[in-house]
Amino acid sequence: MEATKSNSSIVILHNAMIVTMDSQTRVYRNGTIVIQNDTIIAVGKSLEILPQFSHEVVDLRGQIILPGFINTHVHTSQQLARGIADDVDLLTWLHGRIWPYESNMTEEDSYISTLLCGIELIHSGVTCFAEAGGQHLSGMASAVEVLGLRACLTESIMDCGEGLPASWAARTTEECMKSQKDLFVKHHNSADGRIKVWLGIRQIMNSTDRLLAETRDTAKELETGIHMHIAEIPYENQLIVETRGVDHGTVTYLEKIKFLQNNLLAAHTVWVNEKEVDCLSKAGVKVSHCPAAAMRMLGFAPIREMLSAGVCVSLGTDGAPSNNRMSIVDEMYLASLINKGREVFSRGTTDPTALPAETILRMATINGAKSVLWDKEIGSLEVGKKADIVVVNPSSWSMMPIHDCISSLVYCMRTENIVSVMCNGCWIMKDKKIITVDEEKVLSMAKHASAELLKRAGIQIPNRMNFL
Amino acid sequence: MEATKSNSSIVILHNAMIVTMDSQTRVYRNGTIVIQNDTIIAVGKSLEILPQFSHEVVDLRGQIILPGFINTHVHTSQQLARGIADDVDLLTWLHGRIWPYESNMTEEDSYISTLLCGIELIHSGVTCFAEAGGQHLSGMASAVEVLGLRACLTESIMDCGEGLPASWAARTTEECMKSQKDLFVKHHNSADGRIKVWLGIRQIMNSTDRLLAETRDTAKELETGIHMHIAEIPYENQLIVETRGVDHGTVTYLEKIKFLQNNLLAAHTVWVNEKEVDCLSKAGVKVSHCPAAAMRMLGFAPIREMLSAGVCVSLGTDGAPSNNRMSIVDEMYLASLINKGREVFSRGTTDPTALPAETILRMATINGAKSVLWDKEIGSLEVGKKADIVVVNPSSWSMMPIHDCISSLVYCMRTENIVSVMCNGCWIMKDKKIITVDEEKVLSMAKHASAELLKRAGIQIPNRMNFL
Repeated sequence: MEATKSNSSIVILHNAMIVTMDSQTRVYRNGTIVIQNDTIIAVGKSLEILPQFSHEVVDLRGQIILPGFINTHVHTSQQLARGIADDVDLLTWLHGRIWPYESNMTEEDSYISTLLCGIELIHSGVTCFAEAGGQHLSGMASAVEVLGLRACLTESIMDCGEGLPASWAARTTEECMKSQKDLFVKHHNSADGRIKVWLGIRQIMNSTDRLLAETRDTAKELETGIHMHIAEIPYENQLIVETRGVDHGTVTYLEKIKFLQNNLLAAHTVWVNEKEVDCLSKAGVKVSHCPAAAMRMLGFAPIREMLSAGVCVSLGTDGAPSNNRMSIVDEMYLASLINKGREVFSRGTTDPTALPAETILRMATINGAKSVLWDKEIGSLEVGKKADIVVVNPSSWSMMPIHDCISSLVYCMRTENIVSVMCNGCWIMKDKKIITVDEEKVLSMAKHASAELLKRAGIQIPNRMNFL
Repeated sequence: MEATKSNSSIVILHNAMIVTMDSQTRVYRNGTIVIQNDTIIAVGKSLEILPQFSHEVVDLRGQIILPGFINTHVHTSQQLARGIADDVDLLTWLHGRIWPYESNMTEEDSYISTLLCGIELIHSGVTCFAEAGGQHLSGMASAVEVLGLRACLTESIMDCGEGLPASWAARTTEECMKSQKDLFVKHHNSADGRIKVWLGIRQIMNSTDRLLAETRDTAKELETGIHMHIAEIPYENQLIVETRGVDHGTVTYLEKIKFLQNNLLAAHTVWVNEKEVDCLSKAGVKVSHCPAAAMRMLGFAPIREMLSAGVCVSLGTDGAPSNNRMSIVDEMYLASLINKGREVFSRGTTDPTALPAETILRMATINGAKSVLWDKEIGSLEVGKKADIVVVNPSSWSMMPIHDCISSLVYCMRTENIVSVMCNGCWIMKDKKIITVDEEKVLSMAKHASAELLKRAGIQIPNRMNFL
């Protein structure tokens, strides 16, 4: 195996267990997958596939191949802010830490932050992510291009709201829309088609009605998606009821203004009632469930109910200051645990059968692909799809013994078990080593840039212990 | 650095950040710790300590030293059962999977299971654990001796109850007590004092009043601890109210029979009311909080309330079929998240300030030591205590950048970051390689033994996908 793309245009991965996540949930116990350039041209039982090819094969005996994971809600430009807002209340989190941090970022900071975040994403098997709305999209795009990942990038967009940093408060609706259209022209479908540009709404409390309407219409015109934080805290719903004349909250209001459409990726979506779940389902809105951020800051969304209602729910890590582990592998584990536990509050006992492992794997793969409007090309291992692949080595203390292969991937697998990652037909990590960027160099750049940025933003983190 | 004990009786670890977890929460930014045989003889600033010694030093620049973590609730003999009971209801879990598994174990199975579990514990920085009550204590003891860990071992004890496997149902109260006393004589204080033998009560629904009374009295006589699962599910409390004439549940009943004492380690203790929390506090009972198992199976204990009431709460992983990650590093992360989230159900919003990182670190170290009645010797890095030490390398993508060192250890650290572990003055892991046992060999033994055991027990795990 060589760095990045094979010289031959054909790569054959052989002898692995292949979990396809196709519509028939096929798993090949001893499977082969054949990749030509960026595309899967064959997948199936080794005995049937191998005789058709006379190329060199990569023997992956004892390993498991999965579709690349899709992280549908991640703030890549917040990666340098890991640990700046732990154990503080929401107001301090936002006004004292995150806004000063983000509003002081340069494009170079955003580039470095996305590189650092990308390294963590790749180590946890992610091949595609949806940026939640961050600073300096061009910086992010440069990093994604270098990393070799696939991404839907979104700018942080706000055109109103209380207490915003001065540079943000001055931004008009026109400027918000123009900036996004310009970025769309510049970056959409760049990096061999690995980068898409989406429209963003940071949250309803920072959006005028005009911004919402223009975003809805522009997304339709550009045939792209919208990424928005929705119904994150009870206060948000309360404010919407008080100011926008609806009887429940953000989802009800967005339904009223016809914002709920199948190109909307709704992050968190915690505080929704039964009727609103129904609205999301009928409109084909996708929901990104971020279990760690939910537990830490927001509360527990009715995920089981959403899935039952037919809503497409996928998984996200959120940003480093909300989590702080940026691993979709950990989020799979958490998503299952927390949604089993949450049942205690509706029925008096937990439900250990809720969100079984196969459902969680679907959320991290094919549902992720649908959420980023990319399921025609990614999310499962099928002929004709792009070669976005994760190779897992389960033969370690963390996963052995394996009595239930699919549940082991969800409940036991750790980032340590992810050994190689391919995106768009190119290896971006092999044997736990990132191929596309120099990890050590990025760490060093990140250390320096984040220290400078915190200084510039005037953010000081109190000591928790008696440092001598 | 050499394998196991240094030839010189003095080991000096130098240049690291040392988080002592002492009563003054001292952290030495550049610290040195000196170990003679099994004991810490100096700890402090490098500049002050180093000149006092002329021995060779181990340079740990950029690394962090912590007290060894203490896992206060772990079923080591269930490690071979990882994945046999995922996503099933509680009755299937117990009667269809765990009881058939445990009742078919041999002493050799228990030995292998404990070896495998020990490997995972060591990789996650654990130097001491409390066995929750398992099969074949002598098998566990042999494994603990070889692994170089410290442990409080407990037999699984039941003398009544519905639907027990035949070999267990036949066991009388006398046999339960005699077996434990014999094991105490045989193994207590063995392995250079690293092994203690405790008394066990599996759970109240499998205990006669006589067993409870004799356990209480024998523990006092032998000056040892009692490990018991308490108030795990609402049904348990309900049954106690119906059959034993108290108005709430297990804790209320145990209070009535004077079972609540400061040598009791109460696992889970989820379904307790305010009065019962008060009873636990007054009696000095220790609580082992197992966040993953709580979320998956049991429900959310009032941990914040217990800590406020002065109850000593520590952390446990529970057993592999309840979790399935056996990492105290992950439990630290989960404990903070879930207890922040749980507040939503009492006050309408989460409380991101609940159980801050410093509290979580205390739970995993000094509170763990108190819980296993060993805090005179372990749980913090202080002169005169045993040298149980974890070395963390934070310079990786998973923890960088570090803006809040203590919170990074709780929210960002992964097992990957644990590089070396010392127990009782001996290195048991160095540079991520276990010194005391051959990992590959144990994995291979575990794979074989677990397959045989499942066959013997007649346990079959259904497929979740379409395997071809």
